[in-house]
Amino acid sequence: MAEPEWESLEQCLEKHLPPADLREVKRLLYGKETRKLDLPGRAFESAAEGDFELQGYAFEAAEEQLRGPRTVRVGLVQNRIPLPADAPVAKQVRCFRPEIHTRAGPLWALDTPTAPCRPLGLGQQVSALHRRIESIVEVAAMCGVNIICFQEAWTMPFAFCTREKLPWTEFAESAEDGPTTSFCQKLAKKHNMVVVSPILERDGEHGDVLWNTAVVISNSGAVLGKTRKNHIPRVGDFNESTYYMEGNLGHPVFQTPFGRIAVNICYGRHHPLNWLLYSVNGADIIFNPSATIGALSESMWPIEARNAAIANHCFTCAINRVGKEYFPHEFTSGDGKKAHKDFGYFYGSSYVAAPDSSRTPGLSRTRDGLLVAELNLNLCRQVNDVWNFKMTGRYDMYARELAEAVKPNYRPHIVKE
Amino acid sequence: MAEPEWESLEQCLEKHLPPADLREVKRLLYGKETRKLDLPGRAFESAAEGDFELQGYAFEAAEEQLRGPRTVRVGLVQNRIPLPADAPVAKQVRCFRPEIHTRAGPLWALDTPTAPCRPLGLGQQVSALHRRIESIVEVAAMCGVNIICFQEAWTMPFAFCTREKLPWTEFAESAEDGPTTSFCQKLAKKHNMVVVSPILERDGEHGDVLWNTAVVISNSGAVLGKTRKNHIPRVGDFNESTYYMEGNLGHPVFQTPFGRIAVNICYGRHHPLNWLLYSVNGADIIFNPSATIGALSESMWPIEARNAAIANHCFTCAINRVGKEYFPHEFTSGDGKKAHKDFGYFYGSSYVAAPDSSRTPGLSRTRDGLLVAELNLNLCRQVNDVWNFKMTGRYDMYARELAEAVKPNYRPHIVKE
Repeated sequence: MAEPEWESLEQCLEKHLPPADLREVKRLLYGKETRKLDLPGRAFESAAEGDFELQGYAFEAAEEQLRGPRTVRVGLVQNRIPLPADAPVAKQVRCFRPEIHTRAGPLWALDTPTAPCRPLGLGQQVSALHRRIESIVEVAAMCGVNIICFQEAWTMPFAFCTREKLPWTEFAESAEDGPTTSFCQKLAKKHNMVVVSPILERDGEHGDVLWNTAVVISNSGAVLGKTRKNHIPRVGDFNESTYYMEGNLGHPVFQTPFGRIAVNICYGRHHPLNWLLYSVNGADIIFNPSATIGALSESMWPIEARNAAIANHCFTCAINRVGKEYFPHEFTSGDGKKAHKDFGYFYGSSYVAAPDSSRTPGLSRTRDGLLVAELNLNLCRQVNDVWNFKMTGRYDMYARELAEAVKPNYRPHIVKE
Repeated sequence: MAEPEWESLEQCLEKHLPPADLREVKRLLYGKETRKLDLPGRAFESAAEGDFELQGYAFEAAEEQLRGPRTVRVGLVQNRIPLPADAPVAKQVRCFRPEIHTRAGPLWALDTPTAPCRPLGLGQQVSALHRRIESIVEVAAMCGVNIICFQEAWTMPFAFCTREKLPWTEFAESAEDGPTTSFCQKLAKKHNMVVVSPILERDGEHGDVLWNTAVVISNSGAVLGKTRKNHIPRVGDFNESTYYMEGNLGHPVFQTPFGRIAVNICYGRHHPLNWLLYSVNGADIIFNPSATIGALSESMWPIEARNAAIANHCFTCAINRVGKEYFPHEFTSGDGKKAHKDFGYFYGSSYVAAPDSSRTPGLSRTRDGLLVAELNLNLCRQVNDVWNFKMTGRYDMYARELAEAVKPNYRPHIVKE
């Protein structure tokens, strides 16, 4: 695998291909060209100051006679964890004000250039991660983003590789009234923005169990609801089944003033039926907050969310974290190799895919970033009416065939000579 | 859309990218590199003589202790129709021997360089298309191909754009004992090769209706069975629903000595459930014989069959025809544009995708071609055991959810504030 300094496919192609060939390669790889969004200069300045990438694209749709354009701007946030994974939990999640903090011990050195420790007006508790995200959301607001989605389990290192319980389970919070949900509610209200906040959930009402959950917060600031990761990996370092089970909330779709959204968390993107059911329930946009690494999945990444956008006549937003996370104790990866302390590189490359099989370029493989995409949701029904995958889907047949197939005594339909 | 002389993505990247970048771009686009097959020189000579492209790649799998490698070579054939679409049907499908033919009229000029009219020892009836395919199959045999698949409705121009019935329905044949099936049986027996022959079927046992069907012929020469196109398009010039209905044969998988195969015909590739059910029934390899054009689908082409290989832990073989077909009478395309007589460019680009998310380069966008791929079928179960999509697929939940969703009074699960 390439080291992460290889920035992105797009940069490489743009550097080396003659313009006519570049146009043709992009058409083949990315479909109809997406228009670059004209984002405000101060947004780019803030992004540069905060050391994160900012890109913006627009997907257009044909004019209709009865419906005006249904335009929405989504923001996809990818970021590394600003503090080392073995920094104390409270400092990673919540950077107490010095006078509180010093009672507990020496002030943690918030010395990463991307996360200067300054009060940001969201109450006394602001974490290194909260602060980092807040600064990115500020830029998203400048860019007119209506719905923002953070990466999977954004409030913590992706520690499930370790199979250790403490301290990692301390990152879990209530979806309804945990500090991160409160933080996101303030952001939502301040910026009139729907916030999709994927966290490690502690379900106090049902035996204190953990879930991999996305909280959806309305632009009003109210918690609109939550949705849970429906498919849990047991692959490589993704030992998540050690921590939580398959989601039990089905395939809810959230009606927001900006469109109907759903959240297919991470490993669910490998399961076409998961995407389908969100779409059947009416999602115009399906977010796919993820955490995935190069050695395992990088060649799948451009395929799956994009296939889902095509197959379901909807927009999909694939989000992956960046950077390398080092853990305090060594662990093995079930691959015959020596014990080690890191998870490999999360390769970023977040992108948005459209129902007409076009897509944006990806964000960087290495840098924090914000991808702003303007979607005209009318495109979903327009493509639906052209391609008709729902109409021609024969779901009744598949419901029957699947119901048969899961029976213990099912005999596959195999024709022999 | 680019004119078809733009040969292929791969050629362009190889021409312009420095080696290190090319390697990285290929890793991102195509996954783990496929080894080039060492095919016999005389195969390349015959391909050059017959003016078609020949490429060969191998997908490898890890060694196991209890199973030896299960290696199979598949051949994918893409071709233009050798005669004009408005040539008499009998001459396109069956080029009678001159003494027979001249009773009916002057000998049709078989003057395309790729289809010289010479007797080939397969009986008195050999068509321009039969002859062309036979010459490609000869090369496939030199390359050790065990299973070969032709493009969708390979015995005819893709005339469904016209909505005319005659003469196009005259291309239909019995799947069990039509002349094309007989022809393929001889090929199969001669070369000890399984032949997948997608034709327009005339079902004489059930009211003479038409179907879009693939006939699977065992390497013994016996007809192993047939399978029908499960999803029928109503998009652009693909007016196929005017001619035939959705397949009624379910999702059969054919057990051959070389592996278990299934055939997902053309538009079925947009339907993830179609792929899934073939896989649930045990297919190691799913062929996707297609006919599709650039303006409509070229940016979907690299995504869908490949996603299916990933999602189902199997190999998929996407085959598309090449060239432009002109019809005698003008037709409209339901897109507000003027009537015209052609269907646009079929863009070829046939490829094989593997369960580990790797894939071969595509064949040319413009030339006839044979793609030979050596598959170690052990890779399917190996990837299945690593990624576990079947185990984590929750098909019981989806069977229930789909059964609910198709009810007329279904209310989507939408959460509102």
